[in-house]
Amino acid sequence: MTHTSTGRQWNTRRQAKARRKQNAAAVADGKVVPTSDIVAFLEAVLACGDRVVLEGNNQKQADFLSRALAQVDPARVNALHMIIPSVSRVEHLDLFERGIARKLDFSYAGAQSIRISQFLEDGQLEVGAIHTYIELYSRLYVDLVPNVVLIAGYKADRQGNLYTGPSTEDTPALVEAAAFRDGLVIAQVNEIVDDPAGLPRVDVPGSWIDYVVQADQPFFCEPLFTRDPRLIKPVHVLMAMMAIRGIYERHQVQSLNHGIGFNTAAIELILPTYGESLGLKGRICKYWTLNPHPTLIPAIETGWVESVHSFGSELGMEAYVAARPDVFFTGSDGSMRSNRAFCQLAGQYAVDLFIGSTLQIDGDGHSSTVTRGRLSGFGGAPNMGHQPGGRRHPTPAWLDLIETDDPLARGRKLVVQMVETFQAGGKPTFVESMDAVEVARESGMPLAPVMIYGDDVTHVLTEEGIAYLYKAQSLEERRRMIAAVAGVTPIGLKHDPATTRRMRSDGLIALPEDLGVQRSQATRSLLAAKSMADLVDWSGGLYEPPARFRSW
Amino acid sequence: MTHTSTGRQWNTRRQAKARRKQNAAAVADGKVVPTSDIVAFLEAVLACGDRVVLEGNNQKQADFLSRALAQVDPARVNALHMIIPSVSRVEHLDLFERGIARKLDFSYAGAQSIRISQFLEDGQLEVGAIHTYIELYSRLYVDLVPNVVLIAGYKADRQGNLYTGPSTEDTPALVEAAAFRDGLVIAQVNEIVDDPAGLPRVDVPGSWIDYVVQADQPFFCEPLFTRDPRLIKPVHVLMAMMAIRGIYERHQVQSLNHGIGFNTAAIELILPTYGESLGLKGRICKYWTLNPHPTLIPAIETGWVESVHSFGSELGMEAYVAARPDVFFTGSDGSMRSNRAFCQLAGQYAVDLFIGSTLQIDGDGHSSTVTRGRLSGFGGAPNMGHQPGGRRHPTPAWLDLIETDDPLARGRKLVVQMVETFQAGGKPTFVESMDAVEVARESGMPLAPVMIYGDDVTHVLTEEGIAYLYKAQSLEERRRMIAAVAGVTPIGLKHDPATTRRMRSDGLIALPEDLGVQRSQATRSLLAAKSMADLVDWSGGLYEPPARFRSW
Repeated sequence: MTHTSTGRQWNTRRQAKARRKQNAAAVADGKVVPTSDIVAFLEAVLACGDRVVLEGNNQKQADFLSRALAQVDPARVNALHMIIPSVSRVEHLDLFERGIARKLDFSYAGAQSIRISQFLEDGQLEVGAIHTYIELYSRLYVDLVPNVVLIAGYKADRQGNLYTGPSTEDTPALVEAAAFRDGLVIAQVNEIVDDPAGLPRVDVPGSWIDYVVQADQPFFCEPLFTRDPRLIKPVHVLMAMMAIRGIYERHQVQSLNHGIGFNTAAIELILPTYGESLGLKGRICKYWTLNPHPTLIPAIETGWVESVHSFGSELGMEAYVAARPDVFFTGSDGSMRSNRAFCQLAGQYAVDLFIGSTLQIDGDGHSSTVTRGRLSGFGGAPNMGHQPGGRRHPTPAWLDLIETDDPLARGRKLVVQMVETFQAGGKPTFVESMDAVEVARESGMPLAPVMIYGDDVTHVLTEEGIAYLYKAQSLEERRRMIAAVAGVTPIGLKHDPATTRRMRSDGLIALPEDLGVQRSQATRSLLAAKSMADLVDWSGGLYEPPARFRSW
Repeated sequence: MTHTSTGRQWNTRRQAKARRKQNAAAVADGKVVPTSDIVAFLEAVLACGDRVVLEGNNQKQADFLSRALAQVDPARVNALHMIIPSVSRVEHLDLFERGIARKLDFSYAGAQSIRISQFLEDGQLEVGAIHTYIELYSRLYVDLVPNVVLIAGYKADRQGNLYTGPSTEDTPALVEAAAFRDGLVIAQVNEIVDDPAGLPRVDVPGSWIDYVVQADQPFFCEPLFTRDPRLIKPVHVLMAMMAIRGIYERHQVQSLNHGIGFNTAAIELILPTYGESLGLKGRICKYWTLNPHPTLIPAIETGWVESVHSFGSELGMEAYVAARPDVFFTGSDGSMRSNRAFCQLAGQYAVDLFIGSTLQIDGDGHSSTVTRGRLSGFGGAPNMGHQPGGRRHPTPAWLDLIETDDPLARGRKLVVQMVETFQAGGKPTFVESMDAVEVARESGMPLAPVMIYGDDVTHVLTEEGIAYLYKAQSLEERRRMIAAVAGVTPIGLKHDPATTRRMRSDGLIALPEDLGVQRSQATRSLLAAKSMADLVDWSGGLYEPPARFRSW
């Protein structure tokens, strides 16, 4: 044998971590960093070129740490490679403007999407890649192992034991990648308790956390999943009725994920009325993977919902969730435990259906929420909205989509696009070419940022009707089916009335009347709650809407 | 509004858990259950019909708890619904024979696969579904929420803080589903320490664990991923050379997962020799998701491997892994942390390539390891071996498989089937119809247990050559390409020499000589280690092979 050992040193990461801790010793008191010393502390532990994970989630933001990081001296700390699941804060991009950071890997950028595009154009920022949440976590264990991870929680003790409260979200997935690869983990918390017994529970063990710092104010959290029932229109109710009859009842959908639009909120709110009248309680919509949507309260109270597992929390729902432990995942302290990694996993592999909205759909059924000048990223939708080819267990809904008698046929996840044919402002939803294609060209992206690909979509539901795309025998047929429900958009105008009639009688598309849905019944009176006040009432006063929603 | 509150009670699970704990109080001392009282304890806390997760992983087994469970009085505890990731122990099926359990949801059954088939036929057992590992975990958060979870770790303190050591494996995913839904978690450990400081580290916080019990003997663990280099044949070396030149080098494969066969072990062992001679070090095979395969040691020692994230541990590799923290994921105590859920996630979403072996491939490229009379399940392969449609970030290898200039084209994960055309015993690998189809029919399964579907496979590699299936423009062409490398099997005999010549010149298939692979070079002398003793030598004596491999 030709044994050619390289004499390589095998603990360079561990040594680097020890050095960081040595530098930190002048600032920190054990694991506790004084609030006012956080900038000096970050300058002491960070090295130029570090790969740094910053917890910016869909909702929860480690904003004290991100503000502090934006204040470090770029002469001392620069060229950082930032990994931020959701780029949502002004200071996230200040890091690049000030030269502290250079490269960005991310999943989603809401409010900052325009600025990312500009910075990219100006050469102030280099994008590694745009991911879904779950593939970004995955890379932390493969080729994007972090040097430093900055996260947020509610409380910690002086040993670093962390209570994340209902907002566990991405934290465990981010922390583990550093805690077990000699990375440094720094947690901002709203409160540090002296006595470990003062923690309601432990969400992350103290030995995984290197430093804790009390933030100058509680971490920022946004109520992204709250929809005011006042804004639900009759057309949403009509579409919700069609979803229940033409999809949920027809395919026996028992486990599901809902997007955050008014369409799906309408479904949630007519389960206790319309769904009840159809005798569907206990037969559909029992198991949910979604955040604690306030509009789900009436369905929960009337006994529709067996369980809800959540990606994250929702502001105002804390007391309600804690009072419904048979439905929600809660800890021994009573408060919710969310977990985005596991919920994305469950939403991919364990539910019958994903239903969501989008901004643009092309004639082939591809869809995207990307519009010109915005690099908004993917978030979680592509993970929920595709056919998980690694799935092997059957459910009635999954099997119901098999259209052949081939013994090797697989079932399908139901992936439903539920859209009005026109967006607010009169822009057509169905378009010849998505803006995403142009954005990709302009930004030099290797791929167009498609949220959900046409071949993954099984149903398109509009106010016109439902297209059962999984029945399409060819791409041509899929196109005809989409055109048939696309109204008077450029795509819809292509439809041929004779073909549409034939497809209707063949069951490839269905209009409301084919589903036994009476248009005259589609009014707001079907909504179990018509306002935020109604939701509070349903909850027995447990739901406390954030101030901006308290307009009744 | 029509508020119709049901007056439902919302904490029935929490009350049930409190009752279980009340019943347990007569047996347990705080959280500690005396070893000798475990059967009485299980009878006290379990209720008939409970959904019980039993940690039987690929390697690690909560065997003390499974043996105890098989001894409870079926008159007191019966009709359990068992959820067992890997059914590997005799007592797992004794539970059904004795009437203690009734229904089984599982992922994989190795040694017990024949008995499951028999029990199913005899009506002694009802199968819920057969899953991949990751979808079974997913369902614990949706429609298979457990009442009780039985797991295994190395050490615990009296507060339940758990040290799993290198074998963290499935434990966190199983525990979380119960700990945060008012389920009961019971951990067997090899040792209970009085002082929490006596734990090397905390892998699962004490507040998630309700009871700990010291097992009568250390938990059972099997070295499933150890391959003795002595058994690697020249044909494996030839195929390994083809894989490196025709796949890894060609597509720039940087991150990957290897199966456990001798084929892939051969690849690992010729990286430091053949791979080195091609100048490929640092260009391919840098990031790995796999268990600590002993045959990877020479590649690690010669600097090929940047990182390894693991599903589970491998017996004998503990000291070696602990001495290579720059490569492996280890905790602050120095020992490895594995995590099957995260590694499956990484293997699905973050790597360029999966390469594995199988027992049967049909003419369309579908494959299965299921053979008659055995209900062996899926394990993890279908998760690694499919196109993850939810992936959005590009890598060079992923992009390299795009065959069109459609701006909406997606890249592809490389899914490689690496098989000899005949199995040991002269059975053809390439068959007209897989046994899986017949097994499904006989067992009344709704789907044939296909491990990897033909449309997910991008390359088939045999001793004859490589078929680049991702280039196939039609199912017919895919079939012709498979036949061309299927040797003298029933499928291979169908190939038409003229077509094969044309496909070869079109680059659809490649023979060794097309890849610059010299058959004469394909000898065992290319193996960096030729025996277990060589591996120990490469490891500087750190690798300690289990007894059954110590035959040199």
